[in-house]
Amino acid sequence: MSITLAQAEKLSNTAKIKATEIGVAMNIAIVDEGANLVSFHRMDNAWLGSIDIAIKKAKTARYFDMNSGEIGKLSQPGGPLYNIEHSNGGLISFPGGVVLKNSDGKIIGAIGVSGGTVEQDHEVASAANESSNF
Amino acid sequence: MSITLAQAEKLSNTAKIKATEIGVAMNIAIVDEGANLVSFHRMDNAWLGSIDIAIKKAKTARYFDMNSGEIGKLSQPGGPLYNIEHSNGGLISFPGGVVLKNSDGKIIGAIGVSGGTVEQDHEVASAANESSNF
Amino acid sequence: MSITLAQAEKLSNTAKIKATEIGVAMNIAIVDEGANLVSFHRMDNAWLGSIDIAIKKAKTARYFDMNSGEIGKLSQPGGPLYNIEHSNGGLISFPGGVVLKNSDGKIIGAIGVSGGTVEQDHEVASAANESSNF
Amino acid sequence: MSITLAQAEKLSNTAKIKATEIGVAMNIAIVDEGANLVSFHRMDNAWLGSIDIAIKKAKTARYFDMNSGEIGKLSQPGGPLYNIEHSNGGLISFPGGVVLKNSDGKIIGAIGVSGGTVEQDHEVASAANESSNF
Repeated sequence: MSITLAQAEKLSNTAKIKATEIGVAMNIAIVDEGANLVSFHRMDNAWLGSIDIAIKKAKTARYFDMNSGEIGKLSQPGGPLYNIEHSNGGLISFPGGVVLKNSDGKIIGAIGVSGGTVEQDHEVASAANESSNF
Repeated sequence: MSITLAQAEKLSNTAKIKATEIGVAMNIAIVDEGANLVSFHRMDNAWLGSIDIAIKKAKTARYFDMNSGEIGKLSQPGGPLYNIEHSNGGLISFPGGVVLKNSDGKIIGAIGVSGGTVEQDHEVASAANESSNF
Repeated sequence: MSITLAQAEKLSNTAKIKATEIGVAMNIAIVDEGANLVSFHRMDNAWLGSIDIAIKKAKTARYFDMNSGEIGKLSQPGGPLYNIEHSNGGLISFPGGVVLKNSDGKIIGAIGVSGGTVEQDHEVASAANESSNF
Repeated sequence: MSITLAQAEKLSNTAKIKATEIGVAMNIAIVDEGANLVSFHRMDNAWLGSIDIAIKKAKTARYFDMNSGEIGKLSQPGGPLYNIEHSNGGLISFPGGVVLKNSDGKIIGAIGVSGGTVEQDHEVASAANESSNF
């Protein structure tokens, strides 16, 4: 079972509302169980470079079934996953990618948000995730 | 002046309604004036391979300011633009990419649709475009 | 001996004048003896997709020391260089790429033009080349 | 509104004069509002490897609407944007990429300079930017 487009759109809309609240224009990407893109939205005037980053954050989270920032803790110089970002056509390993689970705890996809500080990106992705009711 | 996210979402929604009408699950991508992605929607059960194709169709239309299928007429063996598809990281030169203009005739972006036959893809992209009122 | 920036700019300027004369906005790229970019100019409102094509035409011409359209004659289905466009990160094998020689007949670079029909592209590239006096 | 070719050429020329003054051969790239290349100039004997770097610096600045060196401060090991350089087909996050604004403060493109030390690259890019009067 995977996230549906209707669920992704609802999630993305919640993210947009949260982004508007904190005053940052965000790029919001959602991938399914297979790490394939389901939806993408770039808010007006959001950074162009964050299109790719939002998508890569969502994919990174689903690739390893953990929030993107967790990978970054392990990929530092001297760390066990040093430079893992070279794999899979490029990972983004800082916060803003969040795993999406259904009520049974099964992973059904991931959301990636980019456009502000990493704290803001993670805040928006998490707010969307917490509002969901899959 | 470029397409806004609100305009892109409305356009994408019209495309989804048309796709549902003809019974085909589509991938729908919209790029702005600078050929950068604004929105993407994959309808449930739409082909995974069409994610990239829908995005490339939209980009191809904006790259050359003509519908993607026009490029394909010129890129056949023996044609003047043979194998132009090797440029720009990969073009898609069959129908389904349609240029978007505002009421002054200025190009503000493009839409790319993929998931059915090329006739269906073009039909859905055109229906969305014709319904628009930029 | 390779083309200098001053020579490239003069050449590019001649190309722009010719393009303006025939009423087409062109992308104009010039590479040196080593097939490395020396100069690039995109005229206002020229096709975005032709940035990459102009650069690839210039490189293709210098890669094989013949005008880009000559490659296209050989790369057709059944031809001796079928699908050679897959090499070198993507070739463009239709007209618009022209080899540049000095007065001794030595190749010193190439020019690539894209933005109109292939005939127009070749016309502009040739006009620049013929005006040169290296 | 985006930078025009005439504006880009004037800017690039100012950069060349500054580069000549400080005795370094530079590569100078200018992108428009959509992060698409408008002009490129490689001064004679400038580093070949800096062709791509100058272009990537200009794109990086426009992708995130800040000078390229600002990204590099955040992308160090342990920093919030560690390894962001893996996105967008490769970023360059050290100085030399500078955002270009018009008199209303609107971003209309970016300039990227590469060929000397990062201080020299930034100096040349900034000198061009400061001389502009968009």
